[in-house]
Amino acid sequence: MTTINRRFTLVRRPSGLPTAADFAHDTQPVPEPRDGEVLIRNRYASLDPAMRGWLDDRPSYMPPVPLGAPVRASTIGEVAASANPDFAPGDWVLGLNGIEDYSIAKPGGFTMKIDAKAVPSVTNYLSVLGAVGLTAYFGLLDVGKPKAGETVLVTGAAGAVGSLVGQIAKIQGCRAIGIAGGADKCARLTRDYGFDAAIDYRGKDEAALTAEIRAAAPDGVDVIFENVGGVILDAGLNNLNQGARIALCGLISEYNSTEGAVGARNVWQLIVKSASINGFLVSSYLDRFPEGAAAMAQWVAQGKIRADEHVDEGIENALPAFLRLFEGSNQGKMILKIGGE
Amino acid sequence: MTTINRRFTLVRRPSGLPTAADFAHDTQPVPEPRDGEVLIRNRYASLDPAMRGWLDDRPSYMPPVPLGAPVRASTIGEVAASANPDFAPGDWVLGLNGIEDYSIAKPGGFTMKIDAKAVPSVTNYLSVLGAVGLTAYFGLLDVGKPKAGETVLVTGAAGAVGSLVGQIAKIQGCRAIGIAGGADKCARLTRDYGFDAAIDYRGKDEAALTAEIRAAAPDGVDVIFENVGGVILDAGLNNLNQGARIALCGLISEYNSTEGAVGARNVWQLIVKSASINGFLVSSYLDRFPEGAAAMAQWVAQGKIRADEHVDEGIENALPAFLRLFEGSNQGKMILKIGGE
Repeated sequence: MTTINRRFTLVRRPSGLPTAADFAHDTQPVPEPRDGEVLIRNRYASLDPAMRGWLDDRPSYMPPVPLGAPVRASTIGEVAASANPDFAPGDWVLGLNGIEDYSIAKPGGFTMKIDAKAVPSVTNYLSVLGAVGLTAYFGLLDVGKPKAGETVLVTGAAGAVGSLVGQIAKIQGCRAIGIAGGADKCARLTRDYGFDAAIDYRGKDEAALTAEIRAAAPDGVDVIFENVGGVILDAGLNNLNQGARIALCGLISEYNSTEGAVGARNVWQLIVKSASINGFLVSSYLDRFPEGAAAMAQWVAQGKIRADEHVDEGIENALPAFLRLFEGSNQGKMILKIGGE
Repeated sequence: MTTINRRFTLVRRPSGLPTAADFAHDTQPVPEPRDGEVLIRNRYASLDPAMRGWLDDRPSYMPPVPLGAPVRASTIGEVAASANPDFAPGDWVLGLNGIEDYSIAKPGGFTMKIDAKAVPSVTNYLSVLGAVGLTAYFGLLDVGKPKAGETVLVTGAAGAVGSLVGQIAKIQGCRAIGIAGGADKCARLTRDYGFDAAIDYRGKDEAALTAEIRAAAPDGVDVIFENVGGVILDAGLNNLNQGARIALCGLISEYNSTEGAVGARNVWQLIVKSASINGFLVSSYLDRFPEGAAAMAQWVAQGKIRADEHVDEGIENALPAFLRLFEGSNQGKMILKIGGE
């Protein structure tokens, strides 16, 4: 085993879209696990839009990534050394670690053993069977509460979470409408993920988007699964049905903004339609992860859910791979194969 | 009985704050009730911020007031003529009519008989026992769902609804914090309505308001009863507790705005705190009005709720009386005594 730990660290808080000067690639000695801890050889890191928020120092649901520390990410890897009786070298684990070759973790919370042989690819634990899949599962079913026959609007629909939300909505007997950027992504929504309709938001203002949603959902929208915010959320708010529920998962349109929060301008429509916006975090459902993962695994096995993954290779490519999320050039769940020995 | 019906009509849709040129005072012959209808001699009209929205022609929960028609308002009055077997001349009724001497109404829905002798003043049916009181009652208890010991933040707290919300919150064993404009109103909040703390929003930006709320509620806010919007809502969003509920009743800061909707900029905090914004209309609770009115009447009788009313006289004063709501010069529920013969 090497004694070198390659790390992708944060050295400056980004303003707007992150740039190379905000990060460093360094090496450190591989740490040693202390009592109860394990040393994980990270093999894959999940790259998610939410990670952009963790780089800021505004108040949020997690402390900001400290300057000089590796960029926080969900990873999967193998136990390289263990000071925990329940974990042996070679065990595969999922956890919230850093983009680095080796992380120290204390099992419990986000750190749990996974069965690499039970799935087509171990990376599934970073996509359909991990936080992404469970965000879609609990966010749609527990927060959005769709009923069969209702119309579900998904924004960021070609993204890792959104594409799963649309497929779960269809399994529930709902009509699914997706909003995404560009003709290629929209084609994937209906062709690969079974959405009933796809709307390309590019080049459209609130009025145009409002009209397109109305055309796709003339009877109104009962559930919105919101990943984006901005004019896309505003247009959704203009199309609510009575009693509609908005499951607020993310606001990717704001994460790199340097112009202050926009939020939801048309909240007046919540009054008009007795509707609600409900923020949520998948971490609130930690104790129900086994239930959600089992359901997702079954749907995958039954061919009811397709989970695309987009794997870029090499820790040296961490930044360009991360930036794909904001330029929209990934096709499927964005994953970094950390590489190395 | 006179044959002249004096009316306060809308003749032009206001842009921003309504002006005299948007309205007319005219006279029409008194109409006659047809089968099932009653003719009501309106004695008092309720003046509410929500009426401003009814003058616009944007999509809302009610059709806009037609140009040339009397301005829509809740009124109380006596049956002057009846073509309905359940209503006799002299009966007092509450309904959604117009600012005019006489209205035709069909009992059912918003139009119901009231017992003028059961209350200290018949005008109570336009304040604590009417839509205003029930908005406070159902909005706080059913939408906000406060638990004893929780902290409730009320915006527009010196208004007709807000002052009742604070008092109901105290009855529920909550800590009540009110936001209002000016030292006089803030003094009334703690002195007359039992709020634990009052915050004057005047001259303060989002950061200053955020800090003042934090000082008054260092452990965070569990329920917001929102009447105002804008920076006041933004500052509230910055002080949410885990699982907080925002009962969205109104957005008075936007009603006269000519600059487009602001909405809720800090909705990101809904994700951080797994919190929600829930729009509501008191009309959704129509079938539970008797329950709410009985509870409010009991609290008034027990001296637990104080319901101030501000009565201006004369249909000719309809506009200046209405504008008090936006300049904040009323002290208590704004009511217009229609006057005349």
